[in-house]
Amino acid sequence: MFISFEGTEGVGKTTLIRKIYDHFIAQGQDVVLTREPGGTPMAEQIRALLLSVNHEEKMCNDTELLLMYAARAQHLSQVILPALEAGKTVLCDRFTDASFAYQCAGRGLSEDKLLLLNANFVSRMPDFTFWLDAPIEIGMNRARARGELDRFEQEKVTFFEKVRAGYETLSVRHPERVKRLDASQSPEQVFEQALTYF
Amino acid sequence: MFISFEGTEGVGKTTLIRKIYDHFIAQGQDVVLTREPGGTPMAEQIRALLLSVNHEEKMCNDTELLLMYAARAQHLSQVILPALEAGKTVLCDRFTDASFAYQCAGRGLSEDKLLLLNANFVSRMPDFTFWLDAPIEIGMNRARARGELDRFEQEKVTFFEKVRAGYETLSVRHPERVKRLDASQSPEQVFEQALTYF
Repeated sequence: MFISFEGTEGVGKTTLIRKIYDHFIAQGQDVVLTREPGGTPMAEQIRALLLSVNHEEKMCNDTELLLMYAARAQHLSQVILPALEAGKTVLCDRFTDASFAYQCAGRGLSEDKLLLLNANFVSRMPDFTFWLDAPIEIGMNRARARGELDRFEQEKVTFFEKVRAGYETLSVRHPERVKRLDASQSPEQVFEQALTYF
Repeated sequence: MFISFEGTEGVGKTTLIRKIYDHFIAQGQDVVLTREPGGTPMAEQIRALLLSVNHEEKMCNDTELLLMYAARAQHLSQVILPALEAGKTVLCDRFTDASFAYQCAGRGLSEDKLLLLNANFVSRMPDFTFWLDAPIEIGMNRARARGELDRFEQEKVTFFEKVRAGYETLSVRHPERVKRLDASQSPEQVFEQALTYF
């Protein structure tokens, strides 16, 4: 089983994934916990390029999208597919839905570009996706409290409102796969809500 | 005018581009000399990832292709398109033909992937392309003489034979654009042969 976790900054993805990881491990399951962009040493180097706020030039939208898919291709081939083939459960912090929400809904890139990248470079989609949804201000305050903001976290509230609307679109399009969790609750409550799906 | 220079390692692209650059400058033209992968600070960081021989893991073919196009998107938007719009001549060391020759013909990636990336992420193709062709051994000896070999230069002769065949395919498909230069000649002779096209 391949489960992805989605949402805007500071909604508590990392905390939830950790709780679910511990829950599955306690059940005796073989679980891989990973993240995007990143998940392999090379893909983490691409992540560093994507998140850096120290570039001398603005990263253009196509570059951002293609770097995301370059990292994803490496992550899929080196980590996700081998783990799934070995019968493991994969818990992944963000996957293709994030590209739709951030690059298409957020940046305004054509969805056609995303669809063709998915069709040609993503051989496996998540079986199940938790969308952690909370008002943008709640998440932004949590992200700010963590310290320095990365290139995405430095975006304005209007950008994240578009990203959130993108996730909403996906949850309406794929109700069987994408499940909304109310991330304005406590971490324990979010975890309990997530557990009702297993 | 957008002119690209193609060929396998050590065929003398850099020397020829420099001579043509000096020639155009002497004529009073406004010329930009650039290269791929790279050409902007950010794209050069992607180039460093692509050429590094110090990765902990093998770069998968899809990752290599997508990184090439991420760098290209940045290079196009930041350097090539602005220069062409300003009426400048752009001389570029490698462009999309290199992706066909190296990633498709060399690595064996499906050409469909390349075509859809070109159609969706490359808004401008070269007007004219010089393909510097020489027996692989000549170029490899020159590359080795330059010092440490990068991730591509470390490939075997059989790989470069496929890359060379890829360039040959392109020169047959696009005879009006892709011109073969006999790069086993002296640099001065290659330059003289190139000049006959202007």
